Amino acid sequence: MSLELITSNKCFDGWHKQYRHPSSSLQCNMRFAIFLPAQSHDRPVPVLYWLSGLTCTDENFMQKAGALQQAANLGIAIVAPDTSPRGDQVPDDPDGQYDLGLGAAFYLNASQEPWQQHYKMYDYISQELPALIEANFPVNQRRAISGHSMGGHGALSVALKNPDRYVSVSAFSPIANPINSPWGQKAFNAYLGADQSSWKAYDSSVLMAQANASFPPALVDQGSADGFLAEQLHPESLTAAAKISQYPLTLRMQPDYDHSYYFISSFIAEHLQFHWGFLNAKGA
Amino acid sequence: MSLELITSNKCFDGWHKQYRHPSSSLQCNMRFAIFLPAQSHDRPVPVLYWLSGLTCTDENFMQKAGALQQAANLGIAIVAPDTSPRGDQVPDDPDGQYDLGLGAAFYLNASQEPWQQHYKMYDYISQELPALIEANFPVNQRRAISGHSMGGHGALSVALKNPDRYVSVSAFSPIANPINSPWGQKAFNAYLGADQSSWKAYDSSVLMAQANASFPPALVDQGSADGFLAEQLHPESLTAAAKISQYPLTLRMQPDYDHSYYFISSFIAEHLQFHWGFLNAKGA
Repeated sequence: MSLELITSNKCFDGWHKQYRHPSSSLQCNMRFAIFLPAQSHDRPVPVLYWLSGLTCTDENFMQKAGALQQAANLGIAIVAPDTSPRGDQVPDDPDGQYDLGLGAAFYLNASQEPWQQHYKMYDYISQELPALIEANFPVNQRRAISGHSMGGHGALSVALKNPDRYVSVSAFSPIANPINSPWGQKAFNAYLGADQSSWKAYDSSVLMAQANASFPPALVDQGSADGFLAEQLHPESLTAAAKISQYPLTLRMQPDYDHSYYFISSFIAEHLQFHWGFLNAKGA
Repeated sequence: MSLELITSNKCFDGWHKQYRHPSSSLQCNMRFAIFLPAQSHDRPVPVLYWLSGLTCTDENFMQKAGALQQAANLGIAIVAPDTSPRGDQVPDDPDGQYDLGLGAAFYLNASQEPWQQHYKMYDYISQELPALIEANFPVNQRRAISGHSMGGHGALSVALKNPDRYVSVSAFSPIANPINSPWGQKAFNAYLGADQSSWKAYDSSVLMAQANASFPPALVDQGSADGFLAEQLHPESLTAAAKISQYPLTLRMQPDYDHSYYFISSFIAEHLQFHWGFLNAKGA
């Protein structure tokens, strides 16, 4: 597989880098960012995959979350993919809205035209990208996954559909029950079609209710002053699902915090510490 | 004085806020950002002023530096002003370059047309803005100042010209000797005129050579892989000046770091700790 280095910045004694590569899942060139802590010079390190929200690229989290200090302290690599396929040949929302098409692929495999050729982010995130990372960088196969908003939906649903591939999962302000959210309904209708039975395969609350206590432990933070909370996010559905399946979920309402990276930055070090407890567990 | 709140985000148990206000020095409306740590609910806290580099606004540092965790830990407010006057009535570089005019005011008082009406950033940063902050927020009069690139020049020159108003000063990748830098020469020629004798009043290396050991202690970090280092930054001039005046300067070359916020974020916590040693000194 070909990997083209685009940028390279030393950071906290490790390296932040951006690469471009051709994606077979998405049938386009994709960019991702990776932070490699200094510990990776001596031994393979575990990886946290970060999935960003609507309109983001691989850059938002690396630049704004303030996560790299804790990742450097603990010795965790972070991989931040883009949020959709990219390129002139990739279809976008004909109405030009931010919540469908480019930057808004919702981490699923589209089955409908015109999306189904390129919009296979679920395959890319769950299989192709980890294989690429593990073949080309000094990392081991201990994986955690986290994300924000649409990416919180992505992290939870990918982990719940692949419980053996991730040791832990976390999310900030996730779209926790997309089949009951306007954002989710619009996207799932376009990408998966009008038959709502297919939607449940990507709904974190539905998936969590069907899971069990051996699945990857989950940490979710939600700001109480988040302007999208009532209409779009529905963390209460996740709480109800965890109760049904006795899922190992910790969901914290954080008073007065909003939907921004100021919120994420305030708690990302705790999320990394949470993941580290499983990434670094004995007997792995 | 009128202050208009624009945004407000809870962050690390404190608050990041943006305000707009009319500036008498600059004769336009200006925006600034302030981080108020939780400690400011109980007692006035000291303030670090942060001056950003070319093309930046009040947002770059607050979003990208990862500084607010340490500021919250220590109990330091941070104020980030914009980098130039703003508005349709404010002249910009007729050639549309990034290194003159809007976003590039170099923290001086312009004496030349068409700049002299609005481009009085030196007065704004050294006098008007601190007075506004101290009259309207729960802060005390203990001030430190720091900045990056053009803002590193600004922080050093403002502190060196006002040694009684700042307890300490630091900089990342400063334009340390602007009269010998293409960026500085272009800007000083435009704002101050062709007579180079007027330029020295804003040159940190010239000012530091004329200072003495009672001036605010200075910490400067410079990345060795900074693409602007050889042509634009000249930290060796600052080292030479400090030797002449026995200035309390610590200048560190940081191997392989570049000019980006990935560099700043790697050392900003150490800078805040450095300033805290003086901001929190007994007998203040």
